[in-house]
Amino acid sequence: MTESREQTALPQPKPEQTGYAVIGLGKLTLEELLPAFAVGRASRLAAVVSGDPAEARAAALAYGLTEADAYSYDDFEKLGERDDVHAVYIVLPNSLHREYTERAAKIGKHVLCEKPLATSVEDAEAMVRACKDAGVFLMTAYRCQYTPHHWAARDAVQSGRLGQIKLMHSVNVQVEPNEGQWRLRRELAGGGSLPDVGLYCVNTVRFLLGEEPYEVSGTLYSTPGDERFREVEESVTWQMRFPSGVVAQCACSYGAATARSIDVFGTEGRLAIDPAFDYQNLRLTVQTGQDVTEVRVPPEDQFRLETDHFSRRIQEGCAPYTPGEEGLQDQKIMAAIYQSAHEGGRPVALERFEGRDVFRGAAPERS
Amino acid sequence: MTESREQTALPQPKPEQTGYAVIGLGKLTLEELLPAFAVGRASRLAAVVSGDPAEARAAALAYGLTEADAYSYDDFEKLGERDDVHAVYIVLPNSLHREYTERAAKIGKHVLCEKPLATSVEDAEAMVRACKDAGVFLMTAYRCQYTPHHWAARDAVQSGRLGQIKLMHSVNVQVEPNEGQWRLRRELAGGGSLPDVGLYCVNTVRFLLGEEPYEVSGTLYSTPGDERFREVEESVTWQMRFPSGVVAQCACSYGAATARSIDVFGTEGRLAIDPAFDYQNLRLTVQTGQDVTEVRVPPEDQFRLETDHFSRRIQEGCAPYTPGEEGLQDQKIMAAIYQSAHEGGRPVALERFEGRDVFRGAAPERS
Amino acid sequence: MTESREQTALPQPKPEQTGYAVIGLGKLTLEELLPAFAVGRASRLAAVVSGDPAEARAAALAYGLTEADAYSYDDFEKLGERDDVHAVYIVLPNSLHREYTERAAKIGKHVLCEKPLATSVEDAEAMVRACKDAGVFLMTAYRCQYTPHHWAARDAVQSGRLGQIKLMHSVNVQVEPNEGQWRLRRELAGGGSLPDVGLYCVNTVRFLLGEEPYEVSGTLYSTPGDERFREVEESVTWQMRFPSGVVAQCACSYGAATARSIDVFGTEGRLAIDPAFDYQNLRLTVQTGQDVTEVRVPPEDQFRLETDHFSRRIQEGCAPYTPGEEGLQDQKIMAAIYQSAHEGGRPVALERFEGRDVFRGAAPERS
Amino acid sequence: MTESREQTALPQPKPEQTGYAVIGLGKLTLEELLPAFAVGRASRLAAVVSGDPAEARAAALAYGLTEADAYSYDDFEKLGERDDVHAVYIVLPNSLHREYTERAAKIGKHVLCEKPLATSVEDAEAMVRACKDAGVFLMTAYRCQYTPHHWAARDAVQSGRLGQIKLMHSVNVQVEPNEGQWRLRRELAGGGSLPDVGLYCVNTVRFLLGEEPYEVSGTLYSTPGDERFREVEESVTWQMRFPSGVVAQCACSYGAATARSIDVFGTEGRLAIDPAFDYQNLRLTVQTGQDVTEVRVPPEDQFRLETDHFSRRIQEGCAPYTPGEEGLQDQKIMAAIYQSAHEGGRPVALERFEGRDVFRGAAPERS
Repeated sequence: MTESREQTALPQPKPEQTGYAVIGLGKLTLEELLPAFAVGRASRLAAVVSGDPAEARAAALAYGLTEADAYSYDDFEKLGERDDVHAVYIVLPNSLHREYTERAAKIGKHVLCEKPLATSVEDAEAMVRACKDAGVFLMTAYRCQYTPHHWAARDAVQSGRLGQIKLMHSVNVQVEPNEGQWRLRRELAGGGSLPDVGLYCVNTVRFLLGEEPYEVSGTLYSTPGDERFREVEESVTWQMRFPSGVVAQCACSYGAATARSIDVFGTEGRLAIDPAFDYQNLRLTVQTGQDVTEVRVPPEDQFRLETDHFSRRIQEGCAPYTPGEEGLQDQKIMAAIYQSAHEGGRPVALERFEGRDVFRGAAPERS
Repeated sequence: MTESREQTALPQPKPEQTGYAVIGLGKLTLEELLPAFAVGRASRLAAVVSGDPAEARAAALAYGLTEADAYSYDDFEKLGERDDVHAVYIVLPNSLHREYTERAAKIGKHVLCEKPLATSVEDAEAMVRACKDAGVFLMTAYRCQYTPHHWAARDAVQSGRLGQIKLMHSVNVQVEPNEGQWRLRRELAGGGSLPDVGLYCVNTVRFLLGEEPYEVSGTLYSTPGDERFREVEESVTWQMRFPSGVVAQCACSYGAATARSIDVFGTEGRLAIDPAFDYQNLRLTVQTGQDVTEVRVPPEDQFRLETDHFSRRIQEGCAPYTPGEEGLQDQKIMAAIYQSAHEGGRPVALERFEGRDVFRGAAPERS
Repeated sequence: MTESREQTALPQPKPEQTGYAVIGLGKLTLEELLPAFAVGRASRLAAVVSGDPAEARAAALAYGLTEADAYSYDDFEKLGERDDVHAVYIVLPNSLHREYTERAAKIGKHVLCEKPLATSVEDAEAMVRACKDAGVFLMTAYRCQYTPHHWAARDAVQSGRLGQIKLMHSVNVQVEPNEGQWRLRRELAGGGSLPDVGLYCVNTVRFLLGEEPYEVSGTLYSTPGDERFREVEESVTWQMRFPSGVVAQCACSYGAATARSIDVFGTEGRLAIDPAFDYQNLRLTVQTGQDVTEVRVPPEDQFRLETDHFSRRIQEGCAPYTPGEEGLQDQKIMAAIYQSAHEGGRPVALERFEGRDVFRGAAPERS
Repeated sequence: MTESREQTALPQPKPEQTGYAVIGLGKLTLEELLPAFAVGRASRLAAVVSGDPAEARAAALAYGLTEADAYSYDDFEKLGERDDVHAVYIVLPNSLHREYTERAAKIGKHVLCEKPLATSVEDAEAMVRACKDAGVFLMTAYRCQYTPHHWAARDAVQSGRLGQIKLMHSVNVQVEPNEGQWRLRRELAGGGSLPDVGLYCVNTVRFLLGEEPYEVSGTLYSTPGDERFREVEESVTWQMRFPSGVVAQCACSYGAATARSIDVFGTEGRLAIDPAFDYQNLRLTVQTGQDVTEVRVPPEDQFRLETDHFSRRIQEGCAPYTPGEEGLQDQKIMAAIYQSAHEGGRPVALERFEGRDVFRGAAPERS
């Protein structure tokens, strides 16, 4: 957690900030990431890489770079010559994450990769290995593990304020339009709603508990005849069981109006974040006894918090809080959910881990 | 739904109201049912039956009756001589529901029976049969099928305002203290949290959709070593699939701080009731687009609405909206959830019904 | 405050409860008071008095009385012969409050009188005197001084939880239709929105603070040409200054959609009740620091709490918490507000009282 | 209103954006304005001016400028040589607004001036004149006239959705610590809580209605013995009357825990913004009938919206929506409130304007 006091301090001088090349100029990059770099306190935009040269040049000029900072995918390796580019941020279709991670590792750049880390456990493992071998850091871009609301929720869960946690529920649904985008193509996306939106439920439940599930079961559903869901599933409902006894029920869909929530039920109280995964306006409520308290955490740019975390870790030479291994674990869980669904919903066992935060690095500094 | 206009009208004259004998003087009777009868518009208290004569006499005197209106369990059949007692309201441990229903039917009294209807499918079937044979009405006391908030929610679901419904979630949890009460004894209760609080989720999901599930799966969990759960389960998580494609995830527990909610996710919007099953202060919110609307339905005494419904149906000679068959169907669903849990969570099929509201009587009049 | 534990106890036996004759069968009586008596724990309905004999008989029969318990206004004095009628509850147009209070005092009945106590300071003073001389209790029916939400708010204000109180704001507005009712006739109502709805603001601000204002100023406004406001004012905005330094701004109207709220601003936090004066569904929120807590007080029938308070005080021979003097003080404040408005808004001084709760009896027992 | 579609478009290329010199490096500049310029779509930071050279250089380096872009107050006029500095943004103690506006006008720079525009009507008039004579634009930095929530509220008010508006209430209070800052010194601030926080109430009420008050009355209060309020007032309560009949009650304070709200009461419904004046997390609710709707407007950086508006108007050669005249009118209203308070609270008349938005420029483009 970046400190609130830090707010009154100035950002690092631009020349000392960690420089990023952003790979991919989709909606997320244009609407969220480039503005987040503009207010980066330890991070700055150093280059943009796109398949569309005009778009790349326009983005460069709009955010204070020059045309020389715009690259094509073919030129990617030229970034290796740029000493002011310390890391790449991969914002490409899921199936390309592995290739660009490996190419970045080869030219000695640290890698911040959008979620899901990959489209298969195998690819995710290869990515972790490639970065390790090259001596660069790999971070999975799990925004919700860096935001004040989620940390306040984690504190409430782990401090015992809610008593012993018994049940959790998380939902992440949205309507995915049929516009030929890569998210509905299995080869590019690696799945349907599960790896895209359902992953938030998997990941945030794990984050709040600090535990790993030892068993999952799941079922899929796609509306018969809906053209959007010929290659990938529309909805997934699944359940995860944790060593402490917690049972988490989750649901994701590409076919329901936007809803994103997480609920935690303990012996002494309950907690809800709703909306839970949006870029802004998260709402956290805690109930113990009759009273219901809305915890009003001052909002921050979530993408800035995430990138500044990685930048500081790079500057300090330490692994990030959500390294590649954290993304790999989710990849394994999602594979087990799919396996359960394909086997009629029977429970599927996962490797059992008893420790806490076993795939995470040192916790981010807190305010 | 009783009309709001009715509010400005006076209740029926007392002598014309349907008279009830209430069987069992526990907390629910003392705190909710007797006050509800006091404001009944078509219903009045005519007798009380209890194992504790002093308590029975005190209750009678407190609510405008005389000591002669207080009966013991052994005297139950004497109610047969009371022309001003038209119906009995059974508020006893679940395992006694069958016996008293049969005894009431034999003396020609209509039966309003607390939920769950029975402790087994077999008992529930016997109760339906006994009342049918005796020519008396049997109503399952499903309070939530008579309240304005739930009807407003049902309207939103069935009117298409939320689009096509895709997912539902419902939770009903509370901490059940270990005070030797019958709810933790299998023989008396017929189960643990499922038939007591989980039944609300089963029943209200069915009510909102008007559909019957064709498949369920479930798992149980009890905290190891917790003395309360030696005979009955602490928590149940389960899933129900409906012909329209809706998947409902539900959870109930005797081990988590009170939380009672229902969420509906459709293609055009979402809906939540939270609290959903409390006696008062229900809150209904509907979201379509960005805006979130709290639908402020004027509250009413839920128990009065329920008993007045049965009274009017008795006066009109028509079956109630939630007859014994409605309670029997839930009994079958709960049996299937337990079966799934005992078979490792595999899905269990239920009889398939394609019609709507197949176990319900004519809808209550609405305001 | 009636104790919550009391809830699990039974009401007093009916014959031992305080018996009331309700004078006036308008909407408030039919919709709120008669049902409240039905669930009275120390109070029961004993007679009804109305100008419409058929209505009176119907009300009697609907609530467990006989036709002999129905009286006409002319028969009022016959109540003197009824030993089971201990008190009268006056629910008549404001201008009749004095006459019926004096008539009740003469026949030795205690008086619960709807607010405002009278249509003038002089009448209010006469009422207090008449009851004192006759040795009966007079209680002003200030419902909001008996409800859990308002007591929770008073506690927050007076405990210092909000720090030192600096500012308050209260609004009570509704649309009064032009249906020839007495509320729009000066002679019957004694004023417009101020004595009817604005009085809630005056009274509740005083109750929360426990202080008396030493200065008020006010202005009136009626929409030009609106036929409803030929005799009485539409809106009043006014300000009250208290010895502790608190300034309270208030507004009432007969011309705006229903809104009823009270806000308190202190050095350490703020508090709001909104809705504040409704019969049910009050909402109390408290903010200290960033977090906003909704204090969910279990709701109770407000009219029952009020009448049961008076009944218990009658049974104990003690003055009620809101005696006639409490209503008289508000009458003086309202007179000063009108005076200020008629003098162009200049501040008008009131008698200065430094003590706390100077016009109130012993506080109601609390849960 | 900047269009939401604009979000997916890129900002103007940096070299084409309007360049600003920010004068004053206080908390507002460091925490809000510099980050807002970083994400400007039509606006960029071009220079910083401060009395502290090290701070100025650090700010320049942190936001992508060079040390050569840092100026001292004495160097201010050197900005005249900078073709890439089109405007200055004055963020200095109120008493310096006039001097720097006149100096900026002299060197041909447009002026964006923080609120309040000045410390006296005379100064405000001089500033308007100076800019007019120099042919540069003067904009009062009224953030709340550019944000989506306030525009949604204005739409609800002016569209008739709430019916005819009758009453308004607005509060803006906070605790001002005694740290020797200029806000508690009359000579520098021009007043206490009124020009600083109370101005939001004055201005936003006017903005929502589009009307000008014709009469105000007010009272001051400072806690006796509180050292903070030796020179300036702690609290002000005041009332404004508008030609349409609306009466607005307002309160501001330096002595109460932060609360910022605005309430509108109409014949058909009510509206609230609470928090109303914060930099983020504004909440707008609208009630018509029973239901209460929270209008969830996607949040935006309020300072960016404001500065981008001025930049586009400069680029187009048109006056801004909130020119100097708009700030001057508030100066006159505040002077009348003080006058009323000093004359014992008697109403003070203002010049009467019957038109709508008489001091505003063309409305900002809307999404």
